[in-house]
Amino acid sequence: MLVVMKHNASAEAIEAVVDAIQDMGYGARPIPGGQRTAVGLIGNDGRVDTARLEGMEGVLECIAVTQPYKQVSREWREEDTLIRLDNGTVIGGSEVVLMAGPCAVESEDQIMTSARLLRAAGATVLRGGAFKPRTSPYSFQGLGEEGLRLLAQAREATGLAIVTEAVDPAGVDLVAEYADIIQIGARNMQNYPLLRRAGQSGKPVLLKRGMSATINEFLLAAEYLLAEGNDEVILCERGVRSFDTHTRNLLDLTAIPVVKGLSHLPIVADPSHGTGLRSKVVPMGRAAVAAGADGLIVEVHPDPTRALSDGAQSLYPAQFEEMVGQIDVIARAIGRQLVTPLDAVPA
Amino acid sequence: MLVVMKHNASAEAIEAVVDAIQDMGYGARPIPGGQRTAVGLIGNDGRVDTARLEGMEGVLECIAVTQPYKQVSREWREEDTLIRLDNGTVIGGSEVVLMAGPCAVESEDQIMTSARLLRAAGATVLRGGAFKPRTSPYSFQGLGEEGLRLLAQAREATGLAIVTEAVDPAGVDLVAEYADIIQIGARNMQNYPLLRRAGQSGKPVLLKRGMSATINEFLLAAEYLLAEGNDEVILCERGVRSFDTHTRNLLDLTAIPVVKGLSHLPIVADPSHGTGLRSKVVPMGRAAVAAGADGLIVEVHPDPTRALSDGAQSLYPAQFEEMVGQIDVIARAIGRQLVTPLDAVPA
Amino acid sequence: MLVVMKHNASAEAIEAVVDAIQDMGYGARPIPGGQRTAVGLIGNDGRVDTARLEGMEGVLECIAVTQPYKQVSREWREEDTLIRLDNGTVIGGSEVVLMAGPCAVESEDQIMTSARLLRAAGATVLRGGAFKPRTSPYSFQGLGEEGLRLLAQAREATGLAIVTEAVDPAGVDLVAEYADIIQIGARNMQNYPLLRRAGQSGKPVLLKRGMSATINEFLLAAEYLLAEGNDEVILCERGVRSFDTHTRNLLDLTAIPVVKGLSHLPIVADPSHGTGLRSKVVPMGRAAVAAGADGLIVEVHPDPTRALSDGAQSLYPAQFEEMVGQIDVIARAIGRQLVTPLDAVPA
Amino acid sequence: MLVVMKHNASAEAIEAVVDAIQDMGYGARPIPGGQRTAVGLIGNDGRVDTARLEGMEGVLECIAVTQPYKQVSREWREEDTLIRLDNGTVIGGSEVVLMAGPCAVESEDQIMTSARLLRAAGATVLRGGAFKPRTSPYSFQGLGEEGLRLLAQAREATGLAIVTEAVDPAGVDLVAEYADIIQIGARNMQNYPLLRRAGQSGKPVLLKRGMSATINEFLLAAEYLLAEGNDEVILCERGVRSFDTHTRNLLDLTAIPVVKGLSHLPIVADPSHGTGLRSKVVPMGRAAVAAGADGLIVEVHPDPTRALSDGAQSLYPAQFEEMVGQIDVIARAIGRQLVTPLDAVPA
Repeated sequence: MLVVMKHNASAEAIEAVVDAIQDMGYGARPIPGGQRTAVGLIGNDGRVDTARLEGMEGVLECIAVTQPYKQVSREWREEDTLIRLDNGTVIGGSEVVLMAGPCAVESEDQIMTSARLLRAAGATVLRGGAFKPRTSPYSFQGLGEEGLRLLAQAREATGLAIVTEAVDPAGVDLVAEYADIIQIGARNMQNYPLLRRAGQSGKPVLLKRGMSATINEFLLAAEYLLAEGNDEVILCERGVRSFDTHTRNLLDLTAIPVVKGLSHLPIVADPSHGTGLRSKVVPMGRAAVAAGADGLIVEVHPDPTRALSDGAQSLYPAQFEEMVGQIDVIARAIGRQLVTPLDAVPA
Repeated sequence: MLVVMKHNASAEAIEAVVDAIQDMGYGARPIPGGQRTAVGLIGNDGRVDTARLEGMEGVLECIAVTQPYKQVSREWREEDTLIRLDNGTVIGGSEVVLMAGPCAVESEDQIMTSARLLRAAGATVLRGGAFKPRTSPYSFQGLGEEGLRLLAQAREATGLAIVTEAVDPAGVDLVAEYADIIQIGARNMQNYPLLRRAGQSGKPVLLKRGMSATINEFLLAAEYLLAEGNDEVILCERGVRSFDTHTRNLLDLTAIPVVKGLSHLPIVADPSHGTGLRSKVVPMGRAAVAAGADGLIVEVHPDPTRALSDGAQSLYPAQFEEMVGQIDVIARAIGRQLVTPLDAVPA
Repeated sequence: MLVVMKHNASAEAIEAVVDAIQDMGYGARPIPGGQRTAVGLIGNDGRVDTARLEGMEGVLECIAVTQPYKQVSREWREEDTLIRLDNGTVIGGSEVVLMAGPCAVESEDQIMTSARLLRAAGATVLRGGAFKPRTSPYSFQGLGEEGLRLLAQAREATGLAIVTEAVDPAGVDLVAEYADIIQIGARNMQNYPLLRRAGQSGKPVLLKRGMSATINEFLLAAEYLLAEGNDEVILCERGVRSFDTHTRNLLDLTAIPVVKGLSHLPIVADPSHGTGLRSKVVPMGRAAVAAGADGLIVEVHPDPTRALSDGAQSLYPAQFEEMVGQIDVIARAIGRQLVTPLDAVPA
Repeated sequence: MLVVMKHNASAEAIEAVVDAIQDMGYGARPIPGGQRTAVGLIGNDGRVDTARLEGMEGVLECIAVTQPYKQVSREWREEDTLIRLDNGTVIGGSEVVLMAGPCAVESEDQIMTSARLLRAAGATVLRGGAFKPRTSPYSFQGLGEEGLRLLAQAREATGLAIVTEAVDPAGVDLVAEYADIIQIGARNMQNYPLLRRAGQSGKPVLLKRGMSATINEFLLAAEYLLAEGNDEVILCERGVRSFDTHTRNLLDLTAIPVVKGLSHLPIVADPSHGTGLRSKVVPMGRAAVAAGADGLIVEVHPDPTRALSDGAQSLYPAQFEEMVGQIDVIARAIGRQLVTPLDAVPA
């Protein structure tokens, strides 16, 4: 780390910074420059709390030269992390994975119909919320454990793997019992007790980027999972807060190549929440794959106009199929291929 | 609610919207205009899920005419909510309340010294974290229950009320046992299981605005607390995410008069997290009071350069005293006054 | 337009709004609802200044039901606008257009080399700044008219059309003399005297989205050009301001399908300024085409490490060629094709 | 400047960076660290174009240790800049200056009435637009030179100084003929030809912060004025773009103490554009003064409901008077005082 001093910082101020660094247990090396002095902090592992130094007399700013995260970084592990699900799907390799399903599990008929349609269209992972975090306390909050049972029933029937959300630490074990992948939603990206418990669950975790999380904060949230010993983490870009009201969020597709440069973890995109508009999901799903996403997680509903939540951003099954056809070509244009559809298990 | 149709929407599309609205259990009233038709949705209570309508053929947009929140609104309850603490402090009335203390409880000596200094300076509520949500898993995470015990000891000695954070649903009861006010942090503003439990705790709750929460989302988060029967909610503006790197957050002081117009709940400001810079805390604390805040929550540390967290934004005790003197005048300029200091209990 | 009244607005307040609307020359129709009254404003053309109404007693908000722009909208003109350049390139049709070149014209050798390389790689439009708006007054500001002459020389030699920026109203005529397309930069998106002059120039205009322009503001800026009688406008998404520092801007690719839904004008993407990072230009260029962009405008420099400006985001010629190959496949996956390369004019 | 290399950067990559720095005319000093090497760039004046280095092999990032601006900084000039107007008003000293008036000059009666009211209320500078940049081409664009003449007439009658906007380089001389202070609007903050001309005008300039300008960009825009020899620059915070729709902009009051720390130039606040809501102007005007603003620029209209522009954010004269009374107390609480009202010139 580099502590940059003000132009006119006194020798005493510089000395005080050196003392403070040493008091924190690190080495300090003053680097005089043409206009100002900087003090290098030596021997740290990238996790120094700079706050104490930043407020000191004569200090202009503290510049982190090392990254604040560690196990998630490519410097820690160079090769891509691959996550293998029981049904054979591999996330993070050359295949582009398709996760799809309704926003929420609503009924046996709805989830079973969805699963069959999506399997036929090439998806290998079924999404669907049993526990739904909703902005308003008066909105539909999900079927709870009954929803989990219906998801398991759909897996049984179709072979699709299940990704579904856990919303509190106490509920992680229950979700882990039924799901192949535990989802942590955007609102919970910095819910650390939840992250710790998910990190201990023994299941892969799909971690959504928070509403206005920086890339560093996103990777640090993943670091909470790895710090608990779970390195099966799938990152998910799902749009950030912006100032334009035409879309629900601003899908930050550039985050995909940026994250793949900084980390070995796979990253998928959610164009449904990322746009909030059915008619924009297909073009942005294509764009995400063209940008290098390891997969998509998309809301598809057998009858979107009757969906209990997120109907406006759910694809009709036929739209999903059309998108899959286009993505197939795009994936091959960049040396990848679509995930292999599941074998002809009776569905 | 108003469903605005596209210019060229067909009669069938309009009819389908009318049908969908009726299918949802509401009345529908088409309103033909010069350029386009809108369909009014009648008989709702402001909590309609518009998603289903938004994705329909011919629909341009859905416009909420009623607010999505209810019990928190001034239309629900016109007069200001007052929250009375055991030590006599009243939040939300004409007095401007001073909550202050270190970022985290670090030791008996640190918290007792802080409490005595702050009581002498006019604060009546002591802040201090026992459970600390930290962006990095490797940062200091607080003393836990030991921290709560030290806070209680400081209350015992000084009469200051205690505000401290709960970070997961399972921990709410423990915090409620020691604290006068349970704090919900910005990262947890949409942690709904935590909000529900805090809403059931029987204790006042200080709810911090999320990093990029809109005013509506902020009020809806508070609605979760009121929906559980707890109307002792103190809102807290603490800065939102922005694009400039000079400050940690962008303190949105206009939110204060905006919230006071929309809601009956008191709102305080946190200029420490709102700026992240010690030298900006005093001017922004003054500005918050001038803007109409019902109080301040400020980080003060007896020795900021040795703080284990947030040292760079913690005031020296002398700075806090100076700010209190200035705020005293500002409060009176707008027809308010500073909170009455605690009586001369031996401290 | 709809003027939504507060829940408890008095009959007098409603009457005053009706009077104000009539005083403005429009019709007013009160619409009583379950919870509140709204007043419809009838007979406007979507360009009402709502400010006067918004501040009135009892008014909650004014909701624009018609769009504020007019000639740029798809409701004004349903079919896509096609822009035909002298060298045969058509922008806005089924072909995906490639505009490329250095940030700034630096020398005869640099621009001639660039033009030959880019023509060979399939571009049909050459970009290059002669007048450069720079954030710092001390940075290189371009060669001025000499730069324009060198661009014309490159067109002469290669047949590439020229797009280059005008930075003030007085300079528009000069740029129009040399260029095939006049560029208006992001910083000048709301420079109305410049827009008016460009609207009168008789040349196609490439209008870049402002740093934090909403879609509505972007389309209203284009409306300035159409209002002057120039409907040959190419919109350009080039990233918006965001809070993450990994990239220079946040490329908002969703704006592409959104704009294509709202307007008949073509829209291209600039992944160079949109990311600011050479290694992200290729994936984001691909993603833009997958999202439906009518073309790309990309910075390519024969020797990026020696560029006088924007070197870090300029592609090497070989990278550009690789991207073109990938885009070719992606364009066909969505029923489009790459622009036809120029015939074998001696180059 | 510091060029931080990646963890695994090769010796060749480091050598290439050293060569590139030397090729740019600076000194290069490699600084090996525990985890990675950084290369210091020596002998620059804070205005290096880092783009070339940022894209090089093995480079992680370039960190500016010196500020990119120069003459505007406190390191260039330590004492506050004072700007003295002909009517005796001094901006940037201990007095808090009041600039007020209608959004646009609409008629002789309107501007003369405004001027008399405002002079009586204590303002010493009259604002009013003759040339109005408007988002829509169909909105009222101002009276032009006739507006300037009316402003001059108001000055004649009342002694108030005049601040009014110039919107293009060719119009600067005309505005300079009539105005005491030339305003550069937010949309034109990076209109460099306009800034240069204003820098040559010999008149003080009030420079508004751009819609999403960082503090650095804001100061660099001011640097354009100083670079032309004009150091009479008044900065103006007027709100930045944000994601909440309750207010027109997000007034960034923290920018006031931040700018005062970085620069010697005075800074005023515009709570009218900063909030867009009449009812929020008074609290935010008070807050700006409490935060340390050198003055306010406020929209006041004799009859806001009939204003041709910005009516919803214009104060009634009585509201302005009430605010002035409150600000008077607040200014004294922080060791300042309100500007001395003009002497009893017949008005």
